[in-house]
Amino acid sequence: MRVKLTFSYDGTGFNGYQRQKEEVRTVQGELEYALLKLFDEAIEVHASGRTDSGVHARAQVAHFDLKAEVAPEKIVYALNRFLNRDIRVAHAEVVEADFHARKSAIGKHYSYRIYHGNRPSAIGYSTFNHVNLPFDKALFKESFQVVLGCHDFRGFCGRGSNVTDYERTIYKIAFEENEDNLIIHFIGDGFLRKMIRNLIGTALDISLGRKPKNAMHAALEEKNRSKGGRTASAYGLVLEEVFYTKEALEKSLASFY
Amino acid sequence: MRVKLTFSYDGTGFNGYQRQKEEVRTVQGELEYALLKLFDEAIEVHASGRTDSGVHARAQVAHFDLKAEVAPEKIVYALNRFLNRDIRVAHAEVVEADFHARKSAIGKHYSYRIYHGNRPSAIGYSTFNHVNLPFDKALFKESFQVVLGCHDFRGFCGRGSNVTDYERTIYKIAFEENEDNLIIHFIGDGFLRKMIRNLIGTALDISLGRKPKNAMHAALEEKNRSKGGRTASAYGLVLEEVFYTKEALEKSLASFY
Repeated sequence: MRVKLTFSYDGTGFNGYQRQKEEVRTVQGELEYALLKLFDEAIEVHASGRTDSGVHARAQVAHFDLKAEVAPEKIVYALNRFLNRDIRVAHAEVVEADFHARKSAIGKHYSYRIYHGNRPSAIGYSTFNHVNLPFDKALFKESFQVVLGCHDFRGFCGRGSNVTDYERTIYKIAFEENEDNLIIHFIGDGFLRKMIRNLIGTALDISLGRKPKNAMHAALEEKNRSKGGRTASAYGLVLEEVFYTKEALEKSLASFY
Repeated sequence: MRVKLTFSYDGTGFNGYQRQKEEVRTVQGELEYALLKLFDEAIEVHASGRTDSGVHARAQVAHFDLKAEVAPEKIVYALNRFLNRDIRVAHAEVVEADFHARKSAIGKHYSYRIYHGNRPSAIGYSTFNHVNLPFDKALFKESFQVVLGCHDFRGFCGRGSNVTDYERTIYKIAFEENEDNLIIHFIGDGFLRKMIRNLIGTALDISLGRKPKNAMHAALEEKNRSKGGRTASAYGLVLEEVFYTKEALEKSLASFY
């Protein structure tokens, strides 16, 4: 049976999502090891996409095939008993055999938190990027305008990506503010490797006066990574949700007026 | 010159506050290493008290003596540049030579967070203790009543403590609730090793029906640790503040009506 799993993880203690050859701790590695131990099967877990080292997920989705017939709620219970507390399984359900966590996904929601006060707490340090230089917030927000919609995002793609199609659509970029925090929400049909961190880094460099105001536009139009700004810290980035139905995507879009 | 340092740390990545002989990461060890590197002096850092492995601090206080004359704001800046992000220095000031972070302290405020919902997020997993069995919240709160005030808290002291005087005064225990969280605040003149976690664990065991209702009273009166409940997880415990003046202590007490 094919199982769809929804789970969260704190990326701080992992070398990213994807299993690696070296003996390093990864989210996929921990999940597959838990499944092997629990069901005595070597099971490959397919996520909606990778996340890099340090990136968190509030609701990552993956699928896997299980020979054994196990009630989904038992899978949730058993995995949570077995796994360390920095991965928590929220939900499991049996899905059709043609469901694919990555290929069936029609969109994703990421958030990125910038703390711009001058007394960052160490507690939860990996849930925000501390920007301790004054930056032009209006200019920061404005600079995302040009990347909304459908574009070839090659100019914002990190190295090591193995995609061939760089076209992605960003449906919405919304801002949430409280006290010393600025949270940026991105909803799109998908995102390239490091794309959000490169968008954030470019907007930051523009608003810090380190890059010309047209840097976002230049990197996009010229498909040239070097025209953009730095890659912002992985800390602060959260995969919030993966969408598999139009309804779920539209509900999320509507929640950001 | 004697320097008073106020700093926060995320306890997740540390083997507690106190420097150890083994090559393990400790808060004191990191601070002393940073000071050695920055000021070329072997400096001993004296905190208001230790915190155990996994325990966080929002505002721990320590003092140390520096031969060099350095402006306090430069110490803050240099330490924060040097240290990993899970320790953040908030403040440094030059104090009288008789100031002692531990001996001059007249009180402390700790908080402990219990998450009792059924969908704990992995993000920030170390900032709460997940209690996933239904417990009697009214009974839980009520059971702290007997420990308020001045008592010999031997029955709640963890092993490995080197104190001889077990008398402590708890001025206030206050409860804060939101959605699926119950946060317990403790304000007292000081706390023994693992005392708060043993108080919490005993109240939890009583409210889960694992210990008789008088377990808190029995452990206290008989000064017998085995009469109490388990030691609650270190996750969730935060040293919030250390008080050095009556005004600061009273201000904090007044903030919990």
